[in-house]
Amino acid sequence: MATYAPNTPIELITVDLSKPASEQSPPLHNRWHPDIPAVAEVKTGTLFRAESIDWTGGQILNNDSADDVANVELSRCHHLTGPIRVVDVESGEPAMPGDLLVVELCDIGPLRGHEWGYTGIFSKDNGGGFLTDHFPEAAKAIWDFTGRMASSRHIPGVEFPGLIHPGLIGTAPSHELLEIWNAREGELVANGPEALTLGKHLHTRPLACLPEPKNALLGAVKEGDPAYEKMAAEAARTIPGREHGGNCDIKNLTIGSKVYLPVFVEGANLSYGDIHFSQGDGEVSFCGAIEMSGYMVMKTEIIRGGASKYLKPIGPSPLNVFPLFEISPLEPLFSEWLVFEGQSVDEEGKQHFLDASIAYKRCVLHAINYLSQFGWSKQQIYLLLSCCPCEGRISGIVDVPNCCCTLAVPTRIFKDVDVRPSKDGPPVGPQLVTRADCAT
Amino acid sequence: MATYAPNTPIELITVDLSKPASEQSPPLHNRWHPDIPAVAEVKTGTLFRAESIDWTGGQILNNDSADDVANVELSRCHHLTGPIRVVDVESGEPAMPGDLLVVELCDIGPLRGHEWGYTGIFSKDNGGGFLTDHFPEAAKAIWDFTGRMASSRHIPGVEFPGLIHPGLIGTAPSHELLEIWNAREGELVANGPEALTLGKHLHTRPLACLPEPKNALLGAVKEGDPAYEKMAAEAARTIPGREHGGNCDIKNLTIGSKVYLPVFVEGANLSYGDIHFSQGDGEVSFCGAIEMSGYMVMKTEIIRGGASKYLKPIGPSPLNVFPLFEISPLEPLFSEWLVFEGQSVDEEGKQHFLDASIAYKRCVLHAINYLSQFGWSKQQIYLLLSCCPCEGRISGIVDVPNCCCTLAVPTRIFKDVDVRPSKDGPPVGPQLVTRADCAT
Amino acid sequence: MATYAPNTPIELITVDLSKPASEQSPPLHNRWHPDIPAVAEVKTGTLFRAESIDWTGGQILNNDSADDVANVELSRCHHLTGPIRVVDVESGEPAMPGDLLVVELCDIGPLRGHEWGYTGIFSKDNGGGFLTDHFPEAAKAIWDFTGRMASSRHIPGVEFPGLIHPGLIGTAPSHELLEIWNAREGELVANGPEALTLGKHLHTRPLACLPEPKNALLGAVKEGDPAYEKMAAEAARTIPGREHGGNCDIKNLTIGSKVYLPVFVEGANLSYGDIHFSQGDGEVSFCGAIEMSGYMVMKTEIIRGGASKYLKPIGPSPLNVFPLFEISPLEPLFSEWLVFEGQSVDEEGKQHFLDASIAYKRCVLHAINYLSQFGWSKQQIYLLLSCCPCEGRISGIVDVPNCCCTLAVPTRIFKDVDVRPSKDGPPVGPQLVTRADCAT
Amino acid sequence: MATYAPNTPIELITVDLSKPASEQSPPLHNRWHPDIPAVAEVKTGTLFRAESIDWTGGQILNNDSADDVANVELSRCHHLTGPIRVVDVESGEPAMPGDLLVVELCDIGPLRGHEWGYTGIFSKDNGGGFLTDHFPEAAKAIWDFTGRMASSRHIPGVEFPGLIHPGLIGTAPSHELLEIWNAREGELVANGPEALTLGKHLHTRPLACLPEPKNALLGAVKEGDPAYEKMAAEAARTIPGREHGGNCDIKNLTIGSKVYLPVFVEGANLSYGDIHFSQGDGEVSFCGAIEMSGYMVMKTEIIRGGASKYLKPIGPSPLNVFPLFEISPLEPLFSEWLVFEGQSVDEEGKQHFLDASIAYKRCVLHAINYLSQFGWSKQQIYLLLSCCPCEGRISGIVDVPNCCCTLAVPTRIFKDVDVRPSKDGPPVGPQLVTRADCAT
Repeated sequence: MATYAPNTPIELITVDLSKPASEQSPPLHNRWHPDIPAVAEVKTGTLFRAESIDWTGGQILNNDSADDVANVELSRCHHLTGPIRVVDVESGEPAMPGDLLVVELCDIGPLRGHEWGYTGIFSKDNGGGFLTDHFPEAAKAIWDFTGRMASSRHIPGVEFPGLIHPGLIGTAPSHELLEIWNAREGELVANGPEALTLGKHLHTRPLACLPEPKNALLGAVKEGDPAYEKMAAEAARTIPGREHGGNCDIKNLTIGSKVYLPVFVEGANLSYGDIHFSQGDGEVSFCGAIEMSGYMVMKTEIIRGGASKYLKPIGPSPLNVFPLFEISPLEPLFSEWLVFEGQSVDEEGKQHFLDASIAYKRCVLHAINYLSQFGWSKQQIYLLLSCCPCEGRISGIVDVPNCCCTLAVPTRIFKDVDVRPSKDGPPVGPQLVTRADCAT
Repeated sequence: MATYAPNTPIELITVDLSKPASEQSPPLHNRWHPDIPAVAEVKTGTLFRAESIDWTGGQILNNDSADDVANVELSRCHHLTGPIRVVDVESGEPAMPGDLLVVELCDIGPLRGHEWGYTGIFSKDNGGGFLTDHFPEAAKAIWDFTGRMASSRHIPGVEFPGLIHPGLIGTAPSHELLEIWNAREGELVANGPEALTLGKHLHTRPLACLPEPKNALLGAVKEGDPAYEKMAAEAARTIPGREHGGNCDIKNLTIGSKVYLPVFVEGANLSYGDIHFSQGDGEVSFCGAIEMSGYMVMKTEIIRGGASKYLKPIGPSPLNVFPLFEISPLEPLFSEWLVFEGQSVDEEGKQHFLDASIAYKRCVLHAINYLSQFGWSKQQIYLLLSCCPCEGRISGIVDVPNCCCTLAVPTRIFKDVDVRPSKDGPPVGPQLVTRADCAT
Repeated sequence: MATYAPNTPIELITVDLSKPASEQSPPLHNRWHPDIPAVAEVKTGTLFRAESIDWTGGQILNNDSADDVANVELSRCHHLTGPIRVVDVESGEPAMPGDLLVVELCDIGPLRGHEWGYTGIFSKDNGGGFLTDHFPEAAKAIWDFTGRMASSRHIPGVEFPGLIHPGLIGTAPSHELLEIWNAREGELVANGPEALTLGKHLHTRPLACLPEPKNALLGAVKEGDPAYEKMAAEAARTIPGREHGGNCDIKNLTIGSKVYLPVFVEGANLSYGDIHFSQGDGEVSFCGAIEMSGYMVMKTEIIRGGASKYLKPIGPSPLNVFPLFEISPLEPLFSEWLVFEGQSVDEEGKQHFLDASIAYKRCVLHAINYLSQFGWSKQQIYLLLSCCPCEGRISGIVDVPNCCCTLAVPTRIFKDVDVRPSKDGPPVGPQLVTRADCAT
Repeated sequence: MATYAPNTPIELITVDLSKPASEQSPPLHNRWHPDIPAVAEVKTGTLFRAESIDWTGGQILNNDSADDVANVELSRCHHLTGPIRVVDVESGEPAMPGDLLVVELCDIGPLRGHEWGYTGIFSKDNGGGFLTDHFPEAAKAIWDFTGRMASSRHIPGVEFPGLIHPGLIGTAPSHELLEIWNAREGELVANGPEALTLGKHLHTRPLACLPEPKNALLGAVKEGDPAYEKMAAEAARTIPGREHGGNCDIKNLTIGSKVYLPVFVEGANLSYGDIHFSQGDGEVSFCGAIEMSGYMVMKTEIIRGGASKYLKPIGPSPLNVFPLFEISPLEPLFSEWLVFEGQSVDEEGKQHFLDASIAYKRCVLHAINYLSQFGWSKQQIYLLLSCCPCEGRISGIVDVPNCCCTLAVPTRIFKDVDVRPSKDGPPVGPQLVTRADCAT
């Protein structure tokens, strides 16, 4: 009687963390472009494993200084695994524009021997983060993984389960989509900061990251190739999420979830990277998740014509589509949360009109001020709220002029202190446990 | 042997739905002002019950026309129950500025004989809602309550458990706080729509609702009283949530949760109203929750100096405080969600900078377009997403220039259709169940 | 334009707690018999409200003595509301034998003015409970309801949300089913305690409660009626749950759940009673839930032939059917549990064969011994585990000779102490908070 | 600046699945005995990884015949990894009798290249399972793992997430404890089946598995060693769970949970094995979990004197202790369950007294009968209920003479059918999808 083979994932793509990001084989890419050739092919229904390096490509070290965070070379980021061409297991036909590519995230984890990650506050001089006007200096926390739990010598007294997910997953854009991206982001930059919606608070951050040939990795298209120069000049940066998915930084894309991505080029050309061991909604400190190298085990399906059928355009563009996904039953469960409100009045008292970004900023600031009373520095809490499984919600967005956002923090993550308000007030004097600080 | 009295809530405030809002006794108020006299007093630790009428004061009827929604007189809204003065059960001393008032929401529900509610799309001509540029006409859905479940003849095929909560709960502002509100909101209006953050999309909505003497109800201070005119001219409107709580429209303030409100005046002067049987994050259609009359059973505590101790000012204002709350173990549980992504590119393709409001708008539009393929009209889905327990999250807010928001819809609420994408595509032709529409 | 009536539940049956149980109108019943006439009729789809008195009919008082528990007259219990005849709203035809009656539990709660309940340990002399060999004396805890939360002056330091449910709900048996019950229970008693499966541990408990004419309430068939004597002599006692539902004491039949009951007589003749504010799995102290008077709001449907179609007989009896139900999304959510194991070796060291009852008994004993180290008496913990929302599971039932059961206790219910094991050991000496005891 | 090492688990014990169970290095053991030497030592706080082979030691193959299940050599089972000696990282002192050993289950999974498992019905001739009187023939289902999800070609149409756990984990018994075990289990066998509590229903199963020298693996004490013969003659079999933990088959010991085990010998001598990808409460078909080889990542702590301090004896034995554990936030979340009731009347109509085993048997039989109407065979459902994450509860255990148990099945696991009762009845005729059967 025949014995069956187990459903072992195909080892599609591996990385070698002892080598630089630019020397991986198959090659990585750090830009989006339709002409980056696929480095691998998978059939629908086939379980496969693909590894990735951390988003910076090894620029951040497991030490006690934040100098590396201060000096990250952003033009190198993110380092993506793929593109992976997807073909139908029966017909042999590739995914085609207008299809929906279904990606099941079957397993995700760190690489053996590399069970650690980092969370950083980017320096204002290097792009900063959501609260860069309050936290202009670089800082860092290193996280150690004890199986599925994370803890940090830089933020003692907290521990939480991983909500492991890819910060970035997407299909390759078509030429048409790429042009649309470059046009609209170029226009934003051209209009300059005075056209900004968020006012002076985020002036110090770049408006957008336009195409940047420097340090562009285009997979198999190497510097010196005839096509390289043109491609590097127009390839989209990976910083923002867009219609194809990309760097959406959605913490809920964890093990067991199912993502539906529109297809724009033949083969879909799926790429992913920027694995997070955990992240809070917003990823507020920018390098705010627990960033790591790791692996994903995935499986694909194709819904023929699914993008055309299900995702009807709203506005004028024929490409006006978006990803959707199903939440996994394997998300960690919390039942007790302390919640901070924030409204669209900025911290200097200026009223904004239904601005959810301002309202969420206030939530985060309120939570930092509040929680730092229990022995942590404000930087530590800023880092913590960036990477712990906290939930940021748009609670009310119609009550002119205030948008109300909320930030819910699971109280279980605090190991030795009850952070709820009490008649005693927050600890002071000898009662206050002073904790080791984050790396600066 | 003595028999103990049960812990029956004191019947503190009742309403009579057969009378107009302006004739209730004790009197209601529809403005915020420090000088509105308390209509009742409660001791800390005492369980009490207070009823409220729906936010419009009975302007919306249980029928099949949306004319009433089209013509709502907004200057009458919201109708609030209170103020309730809170004193310490032991010392007899009232809550004082700088304290935190703790309010446990022990039970909430509809009034017997009035087990119904409504969700409305406000007409563009009457202030509109989050998507007023897409849905300029008034519409309405009536919801019937079957115990803790809601269903609607205007949106057949859906049913969900109530996440019953007060849309509005807050303490009275101090004179100082009231002046700050009027100054900053006045400045917003004075700067005009061209200074708006959300661009043309919400131009049609009022920038803010400044003090409006017409139809002002100030509790026991009646028209004709010497103080009335000045108070009515400066009292704050109830539309937005602010530092004292107010109309935050946070769906998670449900039975069993605990709210911590800063105190600004002697006695705290707690008011509440605008009970919702259910609401989705954002309450997007403005009159978007399932609005109803109802009751709340509450209990209070005072944390002396709690606002001063816990809520340290971030900016220059001495009043720079905010409410916080604990989530209840009694929230309904869902484990399966379909999630829609949206980014800060508006539906005409224009790029915005990290604008969570635009990103959330896209989520909602995507969900409306997608879900309306299963037999409902777009208006029905707009109403549904306003009031069903969907979750709106700020997933990523640092990846310039795109903010990524997500809208998660619990699939369990759809009774007879699996709304997830499938190889078959959405139903078409005879397969498509056409459902009765909402009221217009 | 027409205005619609709200979906207010019909007030089908009320009780008057100032009157004795035997004088309620409509009359109650405390036995199961096919010939007890229906006291009310409802149409399928109609929302209706029916009140009930506590299971003892007011024998237990809100005081600090357990004398009433010691002397409960069991022949009077349980006091049931009904029977309610169910007819199809369209055809007017009643539910018929072989149908499935679907009952939605739409809302459940205490009666206003009676927001309290009790948990009792029954005296060994009056039937005892699961641990009567360890706790032979009567004891009592009174619980006060603060909205949806319960706390007790007799077990200070704990608080938990209600998982409100009817301990007892069922359809009327047919004559055939009644005979089967009486035959099999009579045989058990006839065989005597030496045939018992549980050995000496529960010798002291009655083997079964056979028909007992004394104190029989048969609804409209009153003492003196020609039929009364025969009916009272054969009517089944209400203590055990059986094929028709009955006193199953399933804590998960809470607000929002849906029960499917087999129908045995024309009209189904639904009765219910014994409302519990909360109960732990097993209801171990017998009078172990938080017992109360209260109301239920229900709605019915009929699945014609459903019992015949879905519930195929396993053994020889044509009546070999059972109830099933769906769990509600409104159950309270807990995420942290401390779990106690027990195996089928009794507390004197004797090995039993795969006996889940013994294994569960050990779990409960272990939990009592463990938790009583934190300042409570063993009786208090016994009462607490009877009524708090703890979960009793049959974890392994095949590993000869040991069955392994587990008892999971949500740690959130302990308000001021972390009951998990720690390096410090349980509190001793001055650290140990001694708490007021239960009533004896 | 120094770079830190990651928290990579020490590779403490590996297995080689290409070799027989008896030739693994370090050696395995399949009996409990205090004198089996530790094969490895770990310090408290150290993260370590230990692999294990499936409980039968490779006797079951990934094919389509159940012959291997029919012929399993039970005297070889279970194959355990360990014993592991635990010493305090600071003092170097080993765990000592009376301590509590805390074991955090940090990660668990299949071995790469072996991502499959099996569920078997044991033949009546080979010990059988919980329902061996109904299912006397051997049967088998092979499960394939797609990352964290399981599906089976032998039970098509179902899929569920893994609740991965060790079926067996325990510390070594002392000589005294071993003697107690042998005495009490020997007495059970000596009394014979006529003394059984469960009556004839389980007569066909062995009463207990007494010490059996044949095929005894005692780790480093090999056949021929002077000590081997005596040890093999008295070493306890691994089938039942006991005071030290052992084969408790508790599905909730999943990733992230924390187990507290009493220590009986110096060093604690922790062993584990029998990894399950998933299991239903009861593990009813005996080989009823999804059995697999795999790895565990663990971390230990010692609570000095913890067993003595926390686990006070109930009965006469000084060893009257038990394990306890904390549930993990990483358990899969389900919100919709269909629940089957069962009472302690056996399937031939005989009444039993508060017998939870009988009541649970009825639940399982009811669920098999009911669910098999949707296209599966009864054997398939028996296998499914053994291994899917269903919950078996002791709902009421005091209502003489009936114990009421419930079996809750998460409806999400059925991929293409709604298994709830409906007006249409179960599918019949062409509507009924007939599904491929399990292996026999």
